[in-house]
Amino acid sequence: MNFQSDNQSSIFPEIIKYLEEINLNSAPAYGTDKITMQANEMLSELFKIDLKVMYVSSGTAANSIALSAICPPYGGILCSDTAHIGGDECGAPEFFTGGAKLIPIPSNNGLINEENLVNMLNNYGLHGIHEILPSAISLTQASELGTVYNPDNIRKISNFAKKHNLYIHMDGARFSNACCFLKCEPADITWKSGVDILSLGTTKNGTMSCEAILIFNKDIKEDFERRQKRAGHLWSKNRYMSAQIIKWIENERWIKAAQKANNYALSIKNSLSKNKNIIIEYPVDINMVFARIPIAIQDKLKIKNVSFNPWYGSNNLTRFVTSWDTTSTEIKNFDDIMINVEN
Amino acid sequence: MNFQSDNQSSIFPEIIKYLEEINLNSAPAYGTDKITMQANEMLSELFKIDLKVMYVSSGTAANSIALSAICPPYGGILCSDTAHIGGDECGAPEFFTGGAKLIPIPSNNGLINEENLVNMLNNYGLHGIHEILPSAISLTQASELGTVYNPDNIRKISNFAKKHNLYIHMDGARFSNACCFLKCEPADITWKSGVDILSLGTTKNGTMSCEAILIFNKDIKEDFERRQKRAGHLWSKNRYMSAQIIKWIENERWIKAAQKANNYALSIKNSLSKNKNIIIEYPVDINMVFARIPIAIQDKLKIKNVSFNPWYGSNNLTRFVTSWDTTSTEIKNFDDIMINVEN
Amino acid sequence: MNFQSDNQSSIFPEIIKYLEEINLNSAPAYGTDKITMQANEMLSELFKIDLKVMYVSSGTAANSIALSAICPPYGGILCSDTAHIGGDECGAPEFFTGGAKLIPIPSNNGLINEENLVNMLNNYGLHGIHEILPSAISLTQASELGTVYNPDNIRKISNFAKKHNLYIHMDGARFSNACCFLKCEPADITWKSGVDILSLGTTKNGTMSCEAILIFNKDIKEDFERRQKRAGHLWSKNRYMSAQIIKWIENERWIKAAQKANNYALSIKNSLSKNKNIIIEYPVDINMVFARIPIAIQDKLKIKNVSFNPWYGSNNLTRFVTSWDTTSTEIKNFDDIMINVEN
Amino acid sequence: MNFQSDNQSSIFPEIIKYLEEINLNSAPAYGTDKITMQANEMLSELFKIDLKVMYVSSGTAANSIALSAICPPYGGILCSDTAHIGGDECGAPEFFTGGAKLIPIPSNNGLINEENLVNMLNNYGLHGIHEILPSAISLTQASELGTVYNPDNIRKISNFAKKHNLYIHMDGARFSNACCFLKCEPADITWKSGVDILSLGTTKNGTMSCEAILIFNKDIKEDFERRQKRAGHLWSKNRYMSAQIIKWIENERWIKAAQKANNYALSIKNSLSKNKNIIIEYPVDINMVFARIPIAIQDKLKIKNVSFNPWYGSNNLTRFVTSWDTTSTEIKNFDDIMINVEN
Repeated sequence: MNFQSDNQSSIFPEIIKYLEEINLNSAPAYGTDKITMQANEMLSELFKIDLKVMYVSSGTAANSIALSAICPPYGGILCSDTAHIGGDECGAPEFFTGGAKLIPIPSNNGLINEENLVNMLNNYGLHGIHEILPSAISLTQASELGTVYNPDNIRKISNFAKKHNLYIHMDGARFSNACCFLKCEPADITWKSGVDILSLGTTKNGTMSCEAILIFNKDIKEDFERRQKRAGHLWSKNRYMSAQIIKWIENERWIKAAQKANNYALSIKNSLSKNKNIIIEYPVDINMVFARIPIAIQDKLKIKNVSFNPWYGSNNLTRFVTSWDTTSTEIKNFDDIMINVEN
Repeated sequence: MNFQSDNQSSIFPEIIKYLEEINLNSAPAYGTDKITMQANEMLSELFKIDLKVMYVSSGTAANSIALSAICPPYGGILCSDTAHIGGDECGAPEFFTGGAKLIPIPSNNGLINEENLVNMLNNYGLHGIHEILPSAISLTQASELGTVYNPDNIRKISNFAKKHNLYIHMDGARFSNACCFLKCEPADITWKSGVDILSLGTTKNGTMSCEAILIFNKDIKEDFERRQKRAGHLWSKNRYMSAQIIKWIENERWIKAAQKANNYALSIKNSLSKNKNIIIEYPVDINMVFARIPIAIQDKLKIKNVSFNPWYGSNNLTRFVTSWDTTSTEIKNFDDIMINVEN
Repeated sequence: MNFQSDNQSSIFPEIIKYLEEINLNSAPAYGTDKITMQANEMLSELFKIDLKVMYVSSGTAANSIALSAICPPYGGILCSDTAHIGGDECGAPEFFTGGAKLIPIPSNNGLINEENLVNMLNNYGLHGIHEILPSAISLTQASELGTVYNPDNIRKISNFAKKHNLYIHMDGARFSNACCFLKCEPADITWKSGVDILSLGTTKNGTMSCEAILIFNKDIKEDFERRQKRAGHLWSKNRYMSAQIIKWIENERWIKAAQKANNYALSIKNSLSKNKNIIIEYPVDINMVFARIPIAIQDKLKIKNVSFNPWYGSNNLTRFVTSWDTTSTEIKNFDDIMINVEN
Repeated sequence: MNFQSDNQSSIFPEIIKYLEEINLNSAPAYGTDKITMQANEMLSELFKIDLKVMYVSSGTAANSIALSAICPPYGGILCSDTAHIGGDECGAPEFFTGGAKLIPIPSNNGLINEENLVNMLNNYGLHGIHEILPSAISLTQASELGTVYNPDNIRKISNFAKKHNLYIHMDGARFSNACCFLKCEPADITWKSGVDILSLGTTKNGTMSCEAILIFNKDIKEDFERRQKRAGHLWSKNRYMSAQIIKWIENERWIKAAQKANNYALSIKNSLSKNKNIIIEYPVDINMVFARIPIAIQDKLKIKNVSFNPWYGSNNLTRFVTSWDTTSTEIKNFDDIMINVEN
């Protein structure tokens, strides 16, 4: 039973089938092929807007290329104090932007709000040109703590952003799971709510290695492709990446996969909640459960081959992540274990 | 008949089969899985040395990460005036190194030699700290013009390099084809000849998206993984990349594929040579033929659906590239066309 | 009465006299002249160690060049949450290092201690290569809040640093004032206490534009001069910069100037303390007084032409800075004003 | 007799007098003082246009900050193959721009022309996004070989530039000498001829350390001050730098100084020309003479204490530079030596 991370999951069998199918011919390189064009169109349709797309093979790349196009080297990026771009990308945003600074905003359960942004921004500008220029806000949807911004939250933040000449980037590593929780359209929590650019994650939700940068705001006139190329993120055989998107979108595979993962996380939460010594730490909006579990219980779970991660630096806080390929048997077995575990 | 580039080719069916095979389970992320370890071992075996490996999804990434680890931001990288790192990577080496400068060396048929290196290096150091510090040499094997360094060439250059405290990087985008031409072991033209670090290309020769950085020189103590991570080149589901290497090496698939491509290039060369108005521009060591073809003939070929690329900025210089998936029928048909084409 | 900042002060008349004196001839450029060599020797003597020196024209340049030589692009620099490098250099450390991250440590009155460093460092390493590599500690002596590390504080921190392979940088923008307060030799709070590299500030204490980077640790084999040159910080007529150092050191001018400024800050503190509605916020170790002053009183002071700065973002916190050119008349007048100001 | 470089010269005594004069008071920091404002105005007047000014202490800094504002990280800067930014700034343009590439254009006597630009630009764009985007042209006026662009030359190049969306930067390290040669107004060879941004050098012509970046083109909306600050090039006591400009402009001191240097270079040229074994290599437009001098004669000159520089990497090519502080006695003595030197 592996609940360590959805980035350890396998990929949709339909994707591999499709790779086999498209593998009969040579095709134009660097994204000028028909498969890539089809994927682009499907994304435009999914988001109900004419958008610009770039495919890269990691979320870190997607986030950093996006941010480098909306924040100058002397700029600052406001983000949650739990943001992946801050603590888990080894300085990639700093590298790609040429030295911009991340400005961590205190968050509630991983989410930032307008009030905290205002407080932070009030501290900027006082040193004039001696400090960096706040230039962008990055929101993670769903957040690193498994919580979700609703459209209204986002709109308030983006209104604030527009007022202060800040662009809005969204890190959508678990975007599907957020859509699923909100029962909303992708457009509702992106461009319709003021998001300028999105890192759309698919790798954690059924693909092999495909993250798409979607540019909604036509004012961003950056030469994205050159940024992609010089970062080594332009695939020659791009069709093997964009093909993944086609099967990901087709038949609403993406949202069904996310729904399954979300549901199983609720089951995990329920199983854990049966034990009165275990505390569920954050709302379980998506496919992640954060729980405080006494070490003794943790040890018992490990003996039963339940794997999960301790949360960074914490004594007893743990994270359980479900995935599209989690099975009902695993969920059932986990529940059995929880029922029988002694405190 | 598509002779535009080997980077448009399809991938070994065995790789897709294998992806299907390994797709049954979740597995540890970021290259800590068993498949990756097996691929690492197979590479060590293939190169007959204990080496450090990193997988990335493009040659540009491989070259740039490698170079950034052996050249400081105020350094210089000597390379052929035809080098891919110079003209086709949109400044990636400059980006990854933090501003180092490429120093183009006049080449003969794409190859640089000790004499030209000496001449160039004699121009450095005269301005002292006002100029960048030559720090590395990058050799492309096989070269961008389809020619190959023999082990003796490389050894002379690496002796020169050691004398001047320069590291040797090899861009091996078509490394297989070079091995094939030289009928040598991978080790012979790398660490045994003084190469410190290699970008081993496999994408042009049967894989989807896999380039391996191989570090031979243990003195390079750089924190490569962090450079990989901060560039967004660390795959979470790394096993789907390293799996490609396993099938690439297995059954000498790599060398057989290269042999086939090389042979077909010779056939192309022969077919072209039948026309007295066509000049073969460079030695055809590998899977690329550079030919000067009068525009009128080019047009006739295009009408017959033969596709190939004009070489950059030239009037009548063209490049034909064969690949592992070029077929004998295509080669036969091309020969027929050439026999019948009027001048 | 200008107590806004010591960086607004004038310069030692002896420096201008000396500039006139050395202005009779041409001299070798870029620091190869005799005046620069003499300045180098005087610094070695002052610090009682054979050291390497580089002159630059701002503290930001000194700090950033120093940090870029001891912290890789994927590294982290631990520093106080009040550090000038963090909030007042517009991302210069990020720029010069090529993207390293500053890690702010909670401070007490501007000073960090071993305990807080341990706490912060414990949070690093948990994400492995997904997070930056802590590589250096930067201490500001005296701190931005006017407080001073004693040699024992520094030694504890540097012992900790050595244990964790971190270099120690000291931002000595007000180094003279710290020496003065501690009544110690420059060596005592630098290399003898484990500091590897120092930004020695002189501009705030009597020179025009001269900050010296002093490298104590011979293990730092970086090509500093090239970093200096490529940042545009190598003066051709370097003698006009190094000449300032000669007069700064001569006759203990530097320490006398600092002593005067420190003394006057204590006078200011005493004058302010006479008013029971004013709170002195931090210990007054050097030439800066931080005081909470009701706005009504602030207004009265301004009417009397007393200028001082509000501290960033605060309601009533103010900073008074004295300088080597503050006069006894100003101090006397300020005291008179404070005696007469009504609450 | 020192003819090595004008960057070894002394400074106008009037500047030192003025530094003494303004040294009586404290003044606002970072260029908000009255002296700086006056210097700004004098520059606007001199160039007969409302312009934006930034003062930095080296030509390398001026060039690099200017270039970083008009060329993106993935851009290219076309410049002469003799350009100082290419060979003598240790990669500063690459550093400041975040990795842009210099594209050396073959020059005639150090000057580039439209034809060569067209030829080079024709080679760009063929690789599409795989190559950097030409974004700027940098002209050195006067050139590194002592030759001068006339307004018509510049206008042709800038017309070409506008057509291709390239900005024009001018490296004016010896701008005064060029104005002097052309007997033109500063405006004539800058904004009136299509130059967008100028590095105005004064250090080689009588100041201590002052190079001004002048921005003519209002479309360049870059946040220059933050680029200046993060590079450590914002002086706190800026008045001591801008004061130099005031005295440099006052009484046409700048043009008189340049005239004197130019005249003396012609004298040097004449003296050298008396010897039939000596060849004057380039036109002597300004204060530099390039001459091929047999080694035997060079040795005789050295014995007579004539110092000059061999030109980089050449056997017998030498450079003689005169300066505002070259004396008529030196010129006379040099002529005597040349008359008497045996071949």
